[in-house]
Amino acid sequence: MTGAESLLRTAVDAGVDVCFSNPGTTEMDVVGALDATPEVRSVLGLFEGVCTGMADGYGRMTGRPALTLLHLGVGLGNGIANLHNARRARTPIVNIVGDHPQSHIPFDAPLTSDIATMAKPVSSWVRTSATAAAAAPDMAEAIAHAVGPPGGIATLIAPADSMRDEAVGAATLPMQASEPRPDEDTIRAAVDILRKDEPVVLLVSGSAVRETGLLLTGRIASATGCTAMSDCFSAHMERGAGLPMLDRMPYFPEAVLERLSDVRHLILAGAPAPVSFFKYRDYPSNLVPETCESFTLCPPDVDPLPYLEALADALDAPVNGAALTELKLPDPPSGALDTRSVGAAIAAALPENAIVADESATSGGPTFYLTRTARRHSALYLTGGGIGLGIPMASGAAVACPERPVLALQGDGGAMYTLQALWTQAREGLNVTNVIFSNRKYQILQVEQARTGLSNPGPIARGMTELTNPEIDWRDLAKGMGVRACRPDSAEALYSELERGFAEPGPGLMEVVL
Amino acid sequence: MTGAESLLRTAVDAGVDVCFSNPGTTEMDVVGALDATPEVRSVLGLFEGVCTGMADGYGRMTGRPALTLLHLGVGLGNGIANLHNARRARTPIVNIVGDHPQSHIPFDAPLTSDIATMAKPVSSWVRTSATAAAAAPDMAEAIAHAVGPPGGIATLIAPADSMRDEAVGAATLPMQASEPRPDEDTIRAAVDILRKDEPVVLLVSGSAVRETGLLLTGRIASATGCTAMSDCFSAHMERGAGLPMLDRMPYFPEAVLERLSDVRHLILAGAPAPVSFFKYRDYPSNLVPETCESFTLCPPDVDPLPYLEALADALDAPVNGAALTELKLPDPPSGALDTRSVGAAIAAALPENAIVADESATSGGPTFYLTRTARRHSALYLTGGGIGLGIPMASGAAVACPERPVLALQGDGGAMYTLQALWTQAREGLNVTNVIFSNRKYQILQVEQARTGLSNPGPIARGMTELTNPEIDWRDLAKGMGVRACRPDSAEALYSELERGFAEPGPGLMEVVL
Repeated sequence: MTGAESLLRTAVDAGVDVCFSNPGTTEMDVVGALDATPEVRSVLGLFEGVCTGMADGYGRMTGRPALTLLHLGVGLGNGIANLHNARRARTPIVNIVGDHPQSHIPFDAPLTSDIATMAKPVSSWVRTSATAAAAAPDMAEAIAHAVGPPGGIATLIAPADSMRDEAVGAATLPMQASEPRPDEDTIRAAVDILRKDEPVVLLVSGSAVRETGLLLTGRIASATGCTAMSDCFSAHMERGAGLPMLDRMPYFPEAVLERLSDVRHLILAGAPAPVSFFKYRDYPSNLVPETCESFTLCPPDVDPLPYLEALADALDAPVNGAALTELKLPDPPSGALDTRSVGAAIAAALPENAIVADESATSGGPTFYLTRTARRHSALYLTGGGIGLGIPMASGAAVACPERPVLALQGDGGAMYTLQALWTQAREGLNVTNVIFSNRKYQILQVEQARTGLSNPGPIARGMTELTNPEIDWRDLAKGMGVRACRPDSAEALYSELERGFAEPGPGLMEVVL
Repeated sequence: MTGAESLLRTAVDAGVDVCFSNPGTTEMDVVGALDATPEVRSVLGLFEGVCTGMADGYGRMTGRPALTLLHLGVGLGNGIANLHNARRARTPIVNIVGDHPQSHIPFDAPLTSDIATMAKPVSSWVRTSATAAAAAPDMAEAIAHAVGPPGGIATLIAPADSMRDEAVGAATLPMQASEPRPDEDTIRAAVDILRKDEPVVLLVSGSAVRETGLLLTGRIASATGCTAMSDCFSAHMERGAGLPMLDRMPYFPEAVLERLSDVRHLILAGAPAPVSFFKYRDYPSNLVPETCESFTLCPPDVDPLPYLEALADALDAPVNGAALTELKLPDPPSGALDTRSVGAAIAAALPENAIVADESATSGGPTFYLTRTARRHSALYLTGGGIGLGIPMASGAAVACPERPVLALQGDGGAMYTLQALWTQAREGLNVTNVIFSNRKYQILQVEQARTGLSNPGPIARGMTELTNPEIDWRDLAKGMGVRACRPDSAEALYSELERGFAEPGPGLMEVVL
């Protein structure tokens, strides 16, 4: 058994079953070992940012790490932006980054680079497997780190000699640390806050925005009258009919400050205290007003479920007490396409149990609002602000959940970053319906230009935010990668294309020109 | 004058006139300042790897740094692979990477990341402008560093507060270090080697493969009978009729070893000693045989021109002694498309003074060979091995040299990495003819699989190297980005499309299915 085989066998034994791959020469021994471990499905992406974005979507849906297979520093570099998003989503991922044989590195061949340094900003664990014997135990540690607690991104640098040489065999995962458990004082303090006759926001994140957590949060809210909120960009939220509905923390600082202006207590359950996404002259970075006291039920790197359960029990909150959202679908819209009618078409057409990978940016507001009462679905948001995640994330979610329909909501600016993911969707026959919000601008930048005082930009500044001259035709781009595509010219046409897209197997793309 | 304006004004005063931009919110003050410094042409790329690849092409053609404007760590990450290639090409580049206002960074907002660490592996100079007053002098130092000697990639991290606040004004460049000059002992030692009756290879790089350097190298070769060679992947080589022709150092180690087996002396002029691109079990990393003695005329970070001139003079080599290549064009080919007929079509059609940006990978051998005697042209190669450079590099070269026809030779695997560059070609009306070598595989990986002993890969390993199911249609991809495209079905059709492409303004794309 080679080092590469021992490494992959270790991953298989630990339940890892997918590798999002864009290998090169230095990774050929790992690629060769893939045939010896067919339990690992190797999914080719034609750009590394596609691979890391798919791994993010996969990890968000399964809670388990996928592997990525990347080609030295250049491959890792191409994957960094979506690893940044995954880091902010606290997604478990194990990157395998190939490298030259270690004896070759001092010769500074053209592809040699400082991989470990490059990996640090997006990894909470980085190691180089110095020998074939180390490959399996290193992979075991990488997986253990990725799974956690608290979990995160592990990057294993795999020199070709360590992959090629003979190894002993697979390794088993080290003993996992146990999750911190709630202590009585913390719970009692939270109870005291919630029993005061003062306005409280319970801000939840992580597992607290999925079914069990939502029901616990809803129980607490019903029993105490507090307002339950999620952070602005959740990694994986369950939403829609049959689940408690949470308010979402707004994006812009003035809206957050307004939202919290009458709130006296902010209880944080796995969520960081709200800070401004960007800093503006007139607003602070810290968006918790001085009139509002923060209390940390549990920090962001701790699973909030046991804390919420202990809190709900301590409050004697009735077990089935959460208020559940009733199904309320908009009528299928007709007429012109705008963000409102697009949102209505999506909310009306969205099938039960869909997954929505949302990088709709400035075009997605009405869709977000209208799908709150749609059929139950999972929603994945752009956690780290690095655009170009939506289509890869949708693809990875579809790999994770082949039986579920996946909807990618994608602004055109971000779509151009990682459009290669469409090819992988076609190759793997992934059930992804891609909606491109084609407003032909970096609209968020036009908004931000105005906010930062550049309300009347000159032609050069303006030109940096306009995706015109030429206009991009997403039908052609999709077709070129084997994905059927259309450009509906009305809301009813979009609705009917969405219905068709959800019903038919394989990927499709709809360009919505706004 | 804001920090951003002082920074751009400093760049303008230093002769910098292009910024390859993909900005975000944190860069809005720099974007706003672009209208105050219209001497800087801001070219929008729809992905940061396009911007850095364009900056590489621009810098290789002009010898002057372009700016890039990138959005925090995620934007820099996306640009890393082509910065790696630029680093290997010793291209001068100044990256401006925006960041949050410094007061905001401790709040760890979603887009916060460790930019300085990420920049290090691809930059030889990294600095954060901590104040608006520092912005201009920091930019002056960045440019001075990029220009050199020895020159390289400078990354200036530009927090939004430093860009927005009031600054004093532009700064002037610090005194540049002077180039090392040849000393007599070194020249005399080289003369002694060349006057021995033993086989000598003079391996040249950098400026030595452009006109003046080639003529000097040719003088030396004619006068001494030594063999003049270039390294395998030159950053910017002048080639074709009227210039001395150099042998190219082969790619694979066994070919280098064979080439040098009878050589007793290797004189290095700006070139590193040949090392294996990848390491194979049966061949060493260092490809200089023990029977061959290396002598460094000047190291890779030093301009070889004065050394070659001093050497030529010391040898009393006749001033016009270089043997010049005679124009020899293949007949325009006909019949089936294969790498040989494609090479013939290109060599026959290539106009005088063209620029060839070459990432043709495994498909480009015959083209390389046949264009050695074609009309004189500049050729830019993939220096760092990070694929996805060709189309952006061609675009940047076209920005640098708007009067010259540019030909991008691009394998389809690498083309998918940074296809967004086609949109910039269309928007800027760049005279780039893109030839996509569409063999629908990562052919180099199939070659390397066989070389590394995986001569009979299983279906999974094989699948990782095949760009099929679905096949990509480059006509659609180009059309979607506003670039006219065709798929010639014969060598004569390709030849006629090439002639048309070179004659018509603006970009075009030809997909050559192999």
